[in-house]
Amino acid sequence: MDAARFLDLVAGKLAATEAIFQRHLASDVPFIAEAGSYLAAGGGKRMRPALLLLASRLLGHDGEEEITYAAVVELLHNATLIHDDVIDHADLRRGRRTLNELWGNSKTVLLGDWVYSTAMRLALGHDNVAVIKRLCDATLRMTEGELLTLQRLGSPDLTREQYLDVIDRKTAHLFAAACGIPALIAPAQPAAGVALERYGRALGNCFQLVDDLLDFSGERQELGKPVLADLKEGKLTLPLIAVRDRVSRERWQEVEWVLVDREFRRVEAARILALAESAGGLEETVRLARRFAVEAREALAGFPAGPVRDALELAPEFVLSRRS
Amino acid sequence: MDAARFLDLVAGKLAATEAIFQRHLASDVPFIAEAGSYLAAGGGKRMRPALLLLASRLLGHDGEEEITYAAVVELLHNATLIHDDVIDHADLRRGRRTLNELWGNSKTVLLGDWVYSTAMRLALGHDNVAVIKRLCDATLRMTEGELLTLQRLGSPDLTREQYLDVIDRKTAHLFAAACGIPALIAPAQPAAGVALERYGRALGNCFQLVDDLLDFSGERQELGKPVLADLKEGKLTLPLIAVRDRVSRERWQEVEWVLVDREFRRVEAARILALAESAGGLEETVRLARRFAVEAREALAGFPAGPVRDALELAPEFVLSRRS
Repeated sequence: MDAARFLDLVAGKLAATEAIFQRHLASDVPFIAEAGSYLAAGGGKRMRPALLLLASRLLGHDGEEEITYAAVVELLHNATLIHDDVIDHADLRRGRRTLNELWGNSKTVLLGDWVYSTAMRLALGHDNVAVIKRLCDATLRMTEGELLTLQRLGSPDLTREQYLDVIDRKTAHLFAAACGIPALIAPAQPAAGVALERYGRALGNCFQLVDDLLDFSGERQELGKPVLADLKEGKLTLPLIAVRDRVSRERWQEVEWVLVDREFRRVEAARILALAESAGGLEETVRLARRFAVEAREALAGFPAGPVRDALELAPEFVLSRRS
Repeated sequence: MDAARFLDLVAGKLAATEAIFQRHLASDVPFIAEAGSYLAAGGGKRMRPALLLLASRLLGHDGEEEITYAAVVELLHNATLIHDDVIDHADLRRGRRTLNELWGNSKTVLLGDWVYSTAMRLALGHDNVAVIKRLCDATLRMTEGELLTLQRLGSPDLTREQYLDVIDRKTAHLFAAACGIPALIAPAQPAAGVALERYGRALGNCFQLVDDLLDFSGERQELGKPVLADLKEGKLTLPLIAVRDRVSRERWQEVEWVLVDREFRRVEAARILALAESAGGLEETVRLARRFAVEAREALAGFPAGPVRDALELAPEFVLSRRS
């Protein structure tokens, strides 16, 4: 089975999810309707809905409820992206102009609020409080992760531990929720829920490590944003944290220049890329991402073998191999 | 009974609400803890919690659940204020520096998100889905109200109808939710819920009309913000909408100057105040506020007479008489 084909098993339900996602971005408020349809047309990998649907199928569910939640996690994910782009002053995402770039910060902040509340309202339709609690907790962790990132912006001293805590909150918790929520659909399956949460969390951490790696290798065209964008925003990530103690004080100084200047003025981007490569920063990050991928696969060991478990086991490979 | 004393009946529960409100603004993320305690120390009228607690008592509830929801509506209200201040670039609220003024827009947007999710998480503790749905709907309406306001910023053509639709969404829906939620606490009391929602919605509209009036009369010290701040932000409110067709084209032009300039450059604030006063704009706004106050009181007619109903009947008077 090809890595990219891990979605085939849930293709029909993914299409249904997409329809719900798009339908819930409509409104009688003209701006919401306009920005909502721009957002809906923007696409995305739909990783979280796909995982939620696969996990649902693994647990034997075949109903409407998981389709709703799949749309909900994608809406929540989009709500956080909307606010993140405001905060990062990002002008491009997936190669398209961001909402804040098109409509300004004020309207975009409110649109993020609206998408978030819409997601929660949609989720509430199935009267399952446990699911709403799980979503709410994941949202709190994401917000905390973003706040910790902001608070440490420009800091050259960020430790591995702090970095890992941030990516766990910022990304892994929503992956964990997406994978764990199917175990909260009646009849609840608590033991399966623990395993699937563990799977999702490890996969989410793997995903974010790869995301941070892509900032060192991706092309602007593929990623829809410039190379070393994180560093230019003042964000130190593992590929550089890992080399801090391995390189000369002079060489590290170049990294700090970018954190201070927020641009490549005193040093070229190519020198920073070479540093992360030659001093083993990229290698360490890849190694850790692979370790999380293994952990994710191991979490599935207790489930019966078959095409659905195979697909979930392929997801970490897909994540590791992605180029954008 | 003195209008300001309508809170006495629920003083004990309001104190308990305040403790929950403050406790839930704590966090292991340093910035949240710092900004949260600044927010908690800021006080406020606590109108919505007081109404929720009085309505609960009217329905015979005497438990923990209504205290939780009272804290939740105050947290939700604060979350919207946090984002509103970012959007309006407000530097003062209730005479204190705003969070955005102190910590910048990015952190403040995320703090608003965090407070919102914290409110929802707290509300979920009682496993009452109907309450969460009601809160979610109120939040959606508030966000839409703010978006409609933004979209029409600077427009001199705003109609009475559009204005009333905006204050209804922006303010009245959360008041309605606060008053109606007690009817969703088990055992649910649907008929009482309809009456209390009607009471809260009318009271909320009354409250916002008075708020908009205060912009024409309040002192900077009392309100914690400058006079005619709305107009300077490009927001036309009823005291001016009402006079648009009654004054000369030249006189109305002066209002439009402020909407364009966003400052009193070509006309003095005193002339705008005099216009709203002399052409009957203030009077019409007061009259409409009083009509909503009557509607609120009438909605209580079906409830048994007694001190709790008396207190709820006094609330509109308190709202009409407030000076800050």
